Parts: sequence; C-alpha cells; structure tokens
Amino acid sequence: MKKPKKLRSRKAGMPPGTLVAIGEAKTAEAGITLLDFGPEALVESRLPEMRDLAHYRQQHACLWANIYGLRDPVELSAIGTAFGLHPLMLEDILNTNQRQKAESYGDYLYLVLHRYEVGAAPVCLVQDQISLVIGKGLLLCFQERPSKTFEPIRERLRKSNAVLRSAGMDMLAYSLIDSVVDSYFAVIEQLDEHAERLELEILGRPGPTVLEQIHQFRRCVSQLRRNLHPLRELLGGLGREHAHYFGSEIQLYLRDVYDHTVHILESLDDLRDLATSLLDVHLTTSSHRVNLELRALTVVATIFMPATLIAGIFGMNFRSMPWLDLPAGFFYATGLMLTIAVVMVALFWRRR
Amino acid sequence: MKKPKKLRSRKAGMPPGTLVAIGEAKTAEAGITLLDFGPEALVESRLPEMRDLAHYRQQHACLWANIYGLRDPVELSAIGTAFGLHPLMLEDILNTNQRQKAESYGDYLYLVLHRYEVGAAPVCLVQDQISLVIGKGLLLCFQERPSKTFEPIRERLRKSNAVLRSAGMDMLAYSLIDSVVDSYFAVIEQLDEHAERLELEILGRPGPTVLEQIHQFRRCVSQLRRNLHPLRELLGGLGREHAHYFGSEIQLYLRDVYDHTVHILESLDDLRDLATSLLDVHLTTSSHRVNLELRALTVVATIFMPATLIAGIFGMNFRSMPWLDLPAGFFYATGLMLTIAVVMVALFWRRR
Amino acid sequence: MKKPKKLRSRKAGMPPGTLVAIGEAKTAEAGITLLDFGPEALVESRLPEMRDLAHYRQQHACLWANIYGLRDPVELSAIGTAFGLHPLMLEDILNTNQRQKAESYGDYLYLVLHRYEVGAAPVCLVQDQISLVIGKGLLLCFQERPSKTFEPIRERLRKSNAVLRSAGMDMLAYSLIDSVVDSYFAVIEQLDEHAERLELEILGRPGPTVLEQIHQFRRCVSQLRRNLHPLRELLGGLGREHAHYFGSEIQLYLRDVYDHTVHILESLDDLRDLATSLLDVHLTTSSHRVNLELRALTVVATIFMPATLIAGIFGMNFRSMPWLDLPAGFFYATGLMLTIAVVMVALFWRRR
Amino acid sequence: MKKPKKLRSRKAGMPPGTLVAIGEAKTAEAGITLLDFGPEALVESRLPEMRDLAHYRQQHACLWANIYGLRDPVELSAIGTAFGLHPLMLEDILNTNQRQKAESYGDYLYLVLHRYEVGAAPVCLVQDQISLVIGKGLLLCFQERPSKTFEPIRERLRKSNAVLRSAGMDMLAYSLIDSVVDSYFAVIEQLDEHAERLELEILGRPGPTVLEQIHQFRRCVSQLRRNLHPLRELLGGLGREHAHYFGSEIQLYLRDVYDHTVHILESLDDLRDLATSLLDVHLTTSSHRVNLELRALTVVATIFMPATLIAGIFGMNFRSMPWLDLPAGFFYATGLMLTIAVVMVALFWRRR
Amino acid sequence: MKKPKKLRSRKAGMPPGTLVAIGEAKTAEAGITLLDFGPEALVESRLPEMRDLAHYRQQHACLWANIYGLRDPVELSAIGTAFGLHPLMLEDILNTNQRQKAESYGDYLYLVLHRYEVGAAPVCLVQDQISLVIGKGLLLCFQERPSKTFEPIRERLRKSNAVLRSAGMDMLAYSLIDSVVDSYFAVIEQLDEHAERLELEILGRPGPTVLEQIHQFRRCVSQLRRNLHPLRELLGGLGREHAHYFGSEIQLYLRDVYDHTVHILESLDDLRDLATSLLDVHLTTSSHRVNLELRALTVVATIFMPATLIAGIFGMNFRSMPWLDLPAGFFYATGLMLTIAVVMVALFWRRR
Repeated sequence: MKKPKKLRSRKAGMPPGTLVAIGEAKTAEAGITLLDFGPEALVESRLPEMRDLAHYRQQHACLWANIYGLRDPVELSAIGTAFGLHPLMLEDILNTNQRQKAESYGDYLYLVLHRYEVGAAPVCLVQDQISLVIGKGLLLCFQERPSKTFEPIRERLRKSNAVLRSAGMDMLAYSLIDSVVDSYFAVIEQLDEHAERLELEILGRPGPTVLEQIHQFRRCVSQLRRNLHPLRELLGGLGREHAHYFGSEIQLYLRDVYDHTVHILESLDDLRDLATSLLDVHLTTSSHRVNLELRALTVVATIFMPATLIAGIFGMNFRSMPWLDLPAGFFYATGLMLTIAVVMVALFWRRR
Repeated sequence: MKKPKKLRSRKAGMPPGTLVAIGEAKTAEAGITLLDFGPEALVESRLPEMRDLAHYRQQHACLWANIYGLRDPVELSAIGTAFGLHPLMLEDILNTNQRQKAESYGDYLYLVLHRYEVGAAPVCLVQDQISLVIGKGLLLCFQERPSKTFEPIRERLRKSNAVLRSAGMDMLAYSLIDSVVDSYFAVIEQLDEHAERLELEILGRPGPTVLEQIHQFRRCVSQLRRNLHPLRELLGGLGREHAHYFGSEIQLYLRDVYDHTVHILESLDDLRDLATSLLDVHLTTSSHRVNLELRALTVVATIFMPATLIAGIFGMNFRSMPWLDLPAGFFYATGLMLTIAVVMVALFWRRR
Repeated sequence: MKKPKKLRSRKAGMPPGTLVAIGEAKTAEAGITLLDFGPEALVESRLPEMRDLAHYRQQHACLWANIYGLRDPVELSAIGTAFGLHPLMLEDILNTNQRQKAESYGDYLYLVLHRYEVGAAPVCLVQDQISLVIGKGLLLCFQERPSKTFEPIRERLRKSNAVLRSAGMDMLAYSLIDSVVDSYFAVIEQLDEHAERLELEILGRPGPTVLEQIHQFRRCVSQLRRNLHPLRELLGGLGREHAHYFGSEIQLYLRDVYDHTVHILESLDDLRDLATSLLDVHLTTSSHRVNLELRALTVVATIFMPATLIAGIFGMNFRSMPWLDLPAGFFYATGLMLTIAVVMVALFWRRR
Repeated sequence: MKKPKKLRSRKAGMPPGTLVAIGEAKTAEAGITLLDFGPEALVESRLPEMRDLAHYRQQHACLWANIYGLRDPVELSAIGTAFGLHPLMLEDILNTNQRQKAESYGDYLYLVLHRYEVGAAPVCLVQDQISLVIGKGLLLCFQERPSKTFEPIRERLRKSNAVLRSAGMDMLAYSLIDSVVDSYFAVIEQLDEHAERLELEILGRPGPTVLEQIHQFRRCVSQLRRNLHPLRELLGGLGREHAHYFGSEIQLYLRDVYDHTVHILESLDDLRDLATSLLDVHLTTSSHRVNLELRALTVVATIFMPATLIAGIFGMNFRSMPWLDLPAGFFYATGLMLTIAVVMVALFWRRR
Repeated sequence: MKKPKKLRSRKAGMPPGTLVAIGEAKTAEAGITLLDFGPEALVESRLPEMRDLAHYRQQHACLWANIYGLRDPVELSAIGTAFGLHPLMLEDILNTNQRQKAESYGDYLYLVLHRYEVGAAPVCLVQDQISLVIGKGLLLCFQERPSKTFEPIRERLRKSNAVLRSAGMDMLAYSLIDSVVDSYFAVIEQLDEHAERLELEILGRPGPTVLEQIHQFRRCVSQLRRNLHPLRELLGGLGREHAHYFGSEIQLYLRDVYDHTVHILESLDDLRDLATSLLDVHLTTSSHRVNLELRALTVVATIFMPATLIAGIFGMNFRSMPWLDLPAGFFYATGLMLTIAVVMVALFWRRR
C-alpha cells in the first residue's frame, strides 16, 4: 500500500559527498526539458537521455534546464562534473528529505525549496523538493516529478517581447521562487475551506470521523508551519548573505516575496489556533452530550421507579391491605403514581 | 449567502506588478472625495469619474484624495501613472488581503493599515484595508468602502483656523494613522463587554450557544492580536527607517500612537487569557453538572430499588411466608421500605 | 451597580493633547496637599481651590504637591500652563487607563505608575493610577483618590533631622517609587494567602463557588503580571535613558527596586502556575467524583437487580412452580437473593 | 502549626537600608564558627557572642566566618560597621526571601545563594538563604541555620597540606558555591526517585492521594526551576562583570559550575514535562475507569431488566394468560429470560 | 532488576578534578583498540592492559585510540598524565551523565557526544556517552561500551587508497561526529514508525497499554529534544570558537552536519506535536465511548422501565381492575408495553 521509503539512516558512516538516492521515488521515468533563450530567440527542447545534458551546447544567453525524477547517482554525477557542481550539492539534490535552504558555492547559488499540494480526504500534504542551481546564464531546476507550477513562467518566456527574456537569470530565478511561494497560498486556501467545513460539522452534528479529521488537519498545519520557518530564513538570507546574486530591482521583489512568507506564516498561526479551538469545542460538546444523555436517563428513572414501587406495593400478598377492596382503589393507586411522577419531574425541572 | 472571495492563489506565476483585484468587493460603487487645502482656504469636492483624478489640478498647498471601492485595474493604473506610483504599490492597493506594512518608494511613503468593526452576533470582525500614499503635499487614501472613521479629521480641517491646515502633510498623515489606531479601542471595548456578558452567562446558566460564542470570541481576539503585531512593527518603523517623512514634533506624537498599540496588545492578551479561562470554566462546570446529574440518579436508585425489592418479596406466591397473615403486616413491610431508604440516603449524605 | 466608565474610544479623531477625562471617577471631591520643605524647615498645607496651585509661591528648596481626584480639564490645563507641562503629559494624567511608563519632557520626567489593592471576595484588584512629574525642586503627584500609601514618607519628612529633607528631589521621587513597588508585595502576600485557602478547599471538599474563585484568582494574577512588565521596563529605563534625573547613589537604590520587580514577577509566575495546577486538580477531582458516584450506582444496581428478578420470578402466577409449596421455600428464595448479591459484590470488589 | 512568617510588606515606605528581619526564623539560637587559616596553620574557633566578631583580630592570611541564625538588626549592624559593609547588603542578609544574585560593593562581592532540601511526604522543598560576602582575606557566610553542606570543605581545610589553604580566598569562595550547586543534584535525584514512584503508582493502581502528590511534585519542580534561572544568571555574571574577584584558573572552574546549572535546568525541564505527562495520564486513566464502570452497569442492566420484565408479565393477574397452566410454563418463562440475557450480552460484546 | 546508578550527588564538596566514576557501568570489561595510520600504512592493534596506552610508541602520522568501558580512576589518571590531559577533562570522561559540549584545553579539543539506541517495548532510549579528545596526530575516543557505530569509518581507513588516511586528524574527527549525528536519523525513523503504529491503534481499537505507550513515547521524544539543543550548540561552536582545530574544507562539512541537527530537531518537534495530538485524540475518543455506553444504557432503561411498570400495575391485587377479566386483556397489556417502548425509542432517535 505504502511505497517503501529510502531512509536517511542508510547513509550513516559514509564519506561526505557520497551519492545515494534518499526518499520516495515519486515518478516512474525521469526527463529533461530545456529552455534556451535570449532577448530575441527561444529554443524549447526535450532531451531523450539524461547524459545528453552534459554535452548540450548552449545557443543563447540563458539556459533553463528542468530535470525531473532523477534518482540515478551515476547520471547526476555526470551532470555535476559537466557543470562543476560541488559534491555536497549533488548529495542534497538526491536526498529529497532535505530542509529548505540557500547555500553559496562560489559561482553557483544552490536553493532547496518545497512545493506542497493538498492530498485527498482525510486531508494530507504531498511534498515535492525543488532544487535550484543558479549560475551565470544557467539555471538548473531539479524536481521530484513533472508539475504545472512553472508553466505560467514558461508561457511568459514564450512571448516574443517578454521582459523576462532580457531581464537576466536573477529575474528568472526570482520568478521561480515567487511561483513556489505563491503555490503556498493555494494550499492555505484549501486548508481554510477544509477548516470551515470542519467547523460547521463540529458545531452542527459531528460524524464519527471528525476527530480523525481534526487530527489530520492539525498535522498538516503543523507540518507546513515547521517548513515555513526555513523558507522565511532562506528568503531573508537571499537579501543578505547571497545578495550579490541578485540585482537591486530583484532585491525589491524578493523583499516582497519575503513579506508573503510572513503573511502565510500568520495565516498558519490562525489555522493552528483554529484547530486547537475546534478540538476544545469538540471535547466540550462531547461532554455536553454525556450530560444530556444522563439527564434523559435520570428523567426516565425518576418517572418510572416510584410508579413501579407503588405497583409492587399493591401487588404484595398481605391478607389485610388498605385500598384493595375499594372499587376505585385501582384508580387511587395509578393516580398516586402519576402524581409522584409529575411532582418529581417538576422538582428536577426547577432545580435546573 | 457568502460573497465569493477573489483568492490570492489566482496570481501564482504572474509577473510582479500585475494588477488583479484580490479579496471581497465590499461596496457596489467606487468614488473619490477631494480635500484641497492650504493655511487659508479649503476646497472640498467629489469627482464624478475615477480617471478625473489623474487630470486634477491642485489649487492649494495640500491635497488629500480619499478613494473608496476602487477595484478596476485600468483606472488604478491611470492614477498610478499620473502620480508616478510604483507597480508593486498599486498591486498591494488592489490586493485587500494585504499585511499591514510601511514601505518607502523614494518620494512616497506607502502604508497599509487595517480598520476593524465588530459585526453582529455571534461576534465577528469586519476588516477594511486602508492604503495611504504619503508624498509632498499629497495624500492618497484608498479605502475598501466609505466609512465615518476620518470624518472628525475632515471636521477639524473645515474649521478656518485649524492647526491641521497649516501643519503640513505629515501632521495629516499622523492624524489618519491615529484615528485608525483609536478605532481599535472601540473594538476592544466592544469585545470587553461581550466577554463580560459571556462570563455572566457561563457562571450563571449557560445556554446552548455559549460554546460557539466562546469559540467565535477566541477567533476574534486571536485574529486581532495577529494583526496588531504588524501594526506595532509598522509604527516602530515610522520612527526609525521612515523617520525622514515626519517632523520631530510628529515623531513625538507617533511614539504616543506606538504606545497605544502596545496598550491594545496587552488588552488583547488579557482578553485571550480570559477566553481560555472561560472555556476551562465552562468545561469544568459541564463536568460538575454530570456529577450532579449522576448524584440525582444514584439517590433515586438508592431510594427506590430496595423498596421495590421488598415489595417484590412480599409479592411472591410462596405458601408459607412470614408477616403475610399479620393484620399489621402491610405496615411492617412499608415501614421497612421507608427505614431502608432513609438509612441509605443518610449513608450517602455522610460520605459526602 | 457599576459606575459608568468613560471610555477611551471617545477620543478617536481628536487632535493630540485634547484634554478629556477617561476612566472611572473614584472619588467625589478633588484636593491638593502641599509639602514645601528644605533642609531646615517644612510647611504642610492644604489648598482650598485647585487653581491656587498655579499661583502658589514656593518658600523652601523643594515642593511636593499631591493632587488627588482631579478630573476637570480646565483646572488641569491651568496647572499645566503655570508649570509649563507638555499637553501630551496632561492628556495622560487625565486618561486613567494609561500604561505604566516613563517619559522625558526636557526639564521634567513624567512617570505613570499603578498602585493595587486587593478587593473583597470574590478576589479582585482595584487599580489606581499615580502620575509623577519630577522636576528641579518640584514634584507633582497626581492620584485618582486619596490614599495612605505615601503617609510613611510624609512622616519621615516631618522629622526635623530627616535625611530625606536635604537629599534632593531625586531621593524623594525614589522613595515614592519604592513605596509603590513595595505595595505590590502586600498584594502578592494577600494573593498568596488566598491561594493557600483555595488549595485547602480544593483538596478537601470544594464548595460550589470554588470554580469562580479560581477563575477570578487567575484573572487577578494575569492582570497583575501584565502590568508588571511595563513597570520593570520603566524601572530599567530610569537607570538608562532617564539616568541624568537621578544621582549615582539613587541609581544604586533604583537598581534595588528593579530587582524587587523581578522578584515580584517571579512570585506571580509561581502564582500563575499554581492557579493552573489548581484548576487541573479541580477538574481531575471532579472526574474522580463522577467515578465514585458511578461506582455507588453500580453497586446498588448489582445488589438489588438480581434480587428483584428473583422476587419477580417467584411472584409469577404459573400453576406449577418449584419451591412454592415447600415450607422453607421463602427462605430458600431470600437466601438465593442474598447469595447472589454477595457473590456479585465480591466479584466487583476483586476486579478493583 | 505553621510558624508565623515575617512578611516583606512590613517594609513598605521605610528608608533604604533599614534593617528588619523578614522571613521565618528557622533556628532558635544564632552562632558563629571561625576558620582562621594560612598556608601553614589553621585555627578553628566558636565565638560565644555575636558582637565578638567585630573585635576579632585576624591571625592568619584568611578568615572564614560562618554566621548562622542571625536575626538581630543591632548585632548585624555592629558587624556591618566593623567590616565596612554597605547598608543595602545588610538589609538583604536579614531579608531571607531574597532572590539569588551577585552584587559588587567595591572591595566586597556579595552573593545570595539558596540551598534546598527535600522535605517529608507529601514532597516539598525547604529553602535556606546563604549570603556570601567575599573580600580580600575575608569570607563571611551568613546561613539561616547550621547545616552540613560545607563540612567537606572544612575537612579539606583541616588537612595540613591542603591546596585550599594556600589557594586564596577566591578558591574557597568557588568551593562554597560549587558545593551549593552540587547540593541541587541531590535534590534532583530525590525528585527523580519520587517521580518514578509516582509513575508506577499512576500506571498501576493509583491511591486517593496521588493527585495531591502530583500537584505537590509540580509545585516543587516549578519552584526549583524558577530559582535556577537567577542562579545561572549569577554564575554567568561571575565570569563577566565580577570576573576581577576570581583568578583565571578559578574562572575555568566557575565555567564548569555554570555548565552544571545548565544541566540541572535541563533535568528540571524533563521533570516538569514528566509531571505534566503524569497528570494527563492520570486524567485519561480516570476517564477510562468511568468507562469500565459504566460498562459494568450497562451489562448488569441489560441482563436483569428484560428478565425482570418477563417475570412481571407472568405475575400479572389476567384471567386468561398463555403458558400459565402449562406444566412446563415456569421453565418456558425462565428459559426465555436466560435466552434474552444471553442474546443481549452477545450483542454488546460484538459491538465492542 | 535495575542496575544501581552511581549518583552525581556523591561528588558534592569534593575538590575540582577529583576522579570518581559516576553513572551506570554498561559493560563488564574495558578495552582499547588502536588504529595507528599514515598516508601509506595502517596498524590495527588491541592493547591487553589499559596502562599500556601510556607507553605506546606511535609509528605513523596519526593515532586513533578507542577506549571503551573505562571506569577505573587510577588507569584514567595514568593515561591523562601520559598525554597531558587537564583534570577537569578526565573528570568529565568518568562522569557519564555529562551534557554534550565542546571545550578547548590548549592543544586539545574535548567533545562530549551522546549516541542513542531505541530500546525494546515499551519504547525507551539507551544513551551512551562518547568523549572525543582531539589533538595533533592524536584522537582519543572514550566510549561506555563497544559499539558498531564507528565500524564504517574503520572500514574506510583500512582501504589502502583511503582519502581519510591522508586527510588529517580533523577529517577523522569530523567523520566520527558525522556518524554520531547520522545515528540520530535511525532513532528518528524508529520513533516515526512507532508513532505510526500508535496512531493506527488509537484511531482503531486502542488496547489497555496504549496510554502507557503514548506516555513513554512522549518521554523519549522529550528526552531526545532536550539533548539535541546542546548538540546543535556544540556544532555551532565548532565553526566559531573552536574553528582553528578544523581546516576550511572540514568547516564546510561541519556546517552540513549542523544543518542535519536542525533538521533532526524539526523532526522531533513534529513528533512531539504528534504525541500531544495523539493524547488529545485518545482522551476525546475515550469520552466519546462514555457517551456511547451511556446511550446504550439509556435505551435499555427507556425500553424496559415503562414495560415493567405496566406489568407491575396489572400484577396489583385490587379487587376491581380494568381489563383483567377480558379474554384479550393480556394482549392489550403487552401491546401497550410494546407501543410505549417503540414510541420512546422513536423519540430518542429523533432528538439525535
């Protein structure tokens, strides 16, 4: 049922820079799509073999290679050698349980980003690691599987008069980062909707799975929050330690993206508080129902027990007993039962 | 029932500065009111068309344009071009789910502020985004819908000898910020009253909606608190990074406003603690009621079960049984029932 | 029942420095007591009219004016003009919901302090705002109502050889601050005693109001804690930003007072933890009682239900039934009842 | 039962440096033990009268005076005058509810330390204040009552070739501080054992006092944690602000003691988490027991109620009823009772 | 059952540097394995006696001595004297309850690390202290018992062309630290699996030990988290204060290890949140079960009590009663019972 995870602990004791694929395989086949562009022209191509990338001759000012599903250490190693990438960087590309971070390796800036999608019910998060290697005129983007996240950017590049074509590699890198961060908004909105549905259900008539749903919802929010802290840190770092990779105009845009992460984080704090509140409400509602149930039971017992006792008393076999021989005795007895029941219910009613 | 929100995620992948209206539309029609004033004179006017603002010729030293309900990217773009506003600023004006912030764009200082109103029962908050663009002799104020918040300031301006008229744009900007922050006090006071009503209800006899009310109250307080942190940050920033937009006397006043936000934040902390305490009290009260209910049930069972058994025993059809033939047998039996009931109740009473 | 509060929100939109009395009026009449003293002499007087203060001619080196219950903006304005006080300072003196703070206005240091008293049961806090204006040879002290807090200091001044008389205004200011902080210890001690009483009640036999008492106790501690943070900040600031108002010996004493606030804060943290723990204990005790109640009910049901069934069985009207005709049948039946009851109770007993 | 505490609030309004004994008296009689030592010799003596200390002539290089139980302001004042101690320092020595702190008074370094012992069941902490006054060739140690804490250090001094004798006053001061911090380890270990016992009891069969024990345990841990923060601060300060009182080798040792406090703090964090977890477990166990109790009750009711109804039905006095005249009618009826009981219990069994 | 721990408190009052073995003995016999290597050669040997290490003549550039199970102060003291180790360092090696830390003693860098293993059910952690002494051409590694953690590194050294052989002592030290940190990933993965099993059990049908398991799981996570903070601090310190012990390439690798600890810490935060959520879910599920139990009881009582009353009524011995003499009276009565039961159950059904 569950795909076997390749675990991180397999790497214990290995020398640094050893390439081993860690984490789940999320797509069956790997592939490369290339966008080779300059201010005037754009060539879009799809390489048949992974190793072709190493021999690809660049035609225009900028090359954006999008590599997805790559899990073969040998092929990655070939690409690494061709472009002069640091072994630690290659190691992190293969290890898809990586933390989001920005690292500077001389000519290259290396970014690890996460993209999220909300999975099917019960709500859960699907995470993809996106590794960006940003160099002069080169942008390598490693994804775990093909996705539509960057399609709008490709569309913008395809337009002949696109600003993006002549704006330089840093503008493209910013656009990719921006669309990753924007994809968080979609996740937040879906979680928001889910929370509203849950809220209605809990305040209305909660079904049997509501508890599991709250639990899953909390886990999602908690997981997303935990991942946003490194993202914010990363984006803050782009404007400080790694500022020389980006032009001053792009810096302004990056500050804007940074503000978005802060905004997302606050939305997540709201969702977390909401989840806690929902659980509290659910618990209290549940305790309230115990109360109503008990009240019903007490009322039933209070009405029927005294009456049953009176019936029992007049069912005793004593030779001489009052009322038994009166013609209206039966009605006296049942009248007494009714009176006592009414009085006791009235007493209970008043106490509350 | 619920107005369709324009969601933030629609903008994923778009180039920076793309103008798209995000967030709910809160008013049907847009409009502009102008206050064109100097130390001696004041002209108040209402522009019929949004685009007229771009062609408006200023007559006095200062111009305060109040624009509400603007959601059309084309018209905003025209205004932006006329006054030389940065595209990112225009983007933020349209996106009404913005975080409160202060940003400096050369000649202009751009502020995003939130105004709150307390909605109808169950208690909720209605948020309006107010965008202030503060320049030399110019103040643009973008609101989501017309409101009375700035009416007292307009009143002060209309007076012929108003200090505000000759005090410069920074004094007007301060006055607007101050009245936004002051409007929080009204919200706090309404929440305070609501909390007192809730407290009385919970400690007295809580109705069926009390839980939902606590939940909504907590959400309001939590939402407001979350929004106050950026506001405090913003006001702190006005005295540091953006200090050159304000004279030294205004700095003193801004410090005062900053103190108010700290005060509001502490009041909100109190309200949050109160909300948590109220939920705890409600939960414990609820558990206490289960107890009382159970006690009632136990007392009923303890009184009637032994008596019913005795009645049952003397209702058995054995040929020879004690007491049955005695003339006072019936009274012996009922006396026994009474005695046992009294003894058992007394026992229960003593144990507690 | 509740005095109408003058609310802070009334001031929204007013120009800064507008004088409006905010907060409850706590005394019917206002008054001024004067201590005009120097190393050799002391004159103590009571001004009949508030406005006389503006015309008072100082006779000795130092003047300490204690003004209580002042809520009239006109009179305060007159005093302000006479002594050259800043409008923002006057505004804060009237607004008795002010946060504790220290502000420097050129010649004057302005302090807002809070004094607390523990009110009657259920425990609550009564807060008084004390505004100190400290200048050269002048100390104005604005209180919401007359109190005994500063009486020991007046006593010390009245002694002819008092160190305090010749020690300068900063020593007097320190003495006032010190006695305000010392008054917190009394509050802590009263809360401590209250907590001990609550603890005994909860671990013993909790009455019906115990929950409300814990709730009120938590509110008090929470409110006091919230107010102590600004106080600590204020006192820390006296040794840094406002250090030039105090001599170096007084600095040493102020550091001591600062340590006291830290100590008080830690005591309050203890009290808060205690309150949380008490609520937990109360909740668990309550759940434990449900348990005991249920056990009692189960025991009662376990003893009487089987017996009642047996009585019912021998009360059936079948023509031929076993035991009915035996002389000892009745005793067989009641023996059976007893045996079953004993066995079932024994079973229950062993399971626990 | 409880010794009357002298309360801190008594000092409100008094001038700084006023000597009043605050806190409980913990021993009946006061005393002084002297260790007057140099590299070659050691004289150990016991002064009969407190005031003799002021006139004691020192014979060797170093004097360590251990004063316990001193609560008389006059005698303390005499000592203070003889050694030139600051009034604020004397005030803190008498006030035994002091916070742990290090203060520098010119020639003297003044330390307030706390020593703890674990009291009898229910677990509680007994606190002693230890005031150290460290000067050149002089160490005054004020304790609330005599204790064995420093005995091992005295033993080390008594050895003729002791390193401690010639190592200087700072080494002795370090040794005293170190043994106070080491005494915390003993407290932690006792609390650890107590927690293990509690854990076994809660997971096994909790007695009636278990809740009170958790409550007391939490209070102890909370109190100790609160007191460790000032201690850590103090020890950190010894290496920074007060570094000139200690040689460089002693600095290394003090860093070690500082690490111990961090370690103790982490152990206390563990104990606090454990206490919280234990309460959670206890609460959940308690709720689980309610469940079992209810299940028992339901089973009893489910077995006996239908049977009692059938017995009641066949006990009705209708003229014509089925089965009554059959010879095996009784066994039909009791068989029916049994069948229904078995079926219902089976149903309940399957649902769980 | 439990091995007697040697407690930390035994050392109170002893002079600094006193060697006493603190903590559990984890292996019966001690031993030394030596790896004496240089770029060309490697000699692996096993010393028969602990004291032989002091006299060992080094043959190659680097010596890695792995000492396990050493608890004899005399032997350790001999080693310390031979290599010139500081007494405080030796003290920490023997005290196996040490905090993780890095300390610089002139020529030597001293590290205390912890290695964890997950013990048998109920889940628990087994901790081993690893002391590393890193000098020029010398690495002493003290372990509490022999383990396989460093075996992969030995394997790498044994290869004739190993990079590690010629890379210098800092590379070896890094490799050891890296494999200790990597071993945490294995622990996290085991805890992860355990949590998943627990989650399934709690959401499915929780057994009687589930509460104890959550409790133990929380303790493990809490203990691990507490220990990771010093580890992260330690690794951060290696790149700052102790940076001169490591080459610049190794610095890069150490930054990578530091990132791993941050990653592990975030995983632990997730696990802690999960544990809290699981307990909440368990508590709420438990309360939900009380509800179902009560509902069953109420339904049983609601069906049978009215019927039993009717049976009782027609079992009364009144002379004249309705229905008794009708031929179908019995069926009227039982029909009435059935009708009432059906109606009441229907009522209950509708209310929910």
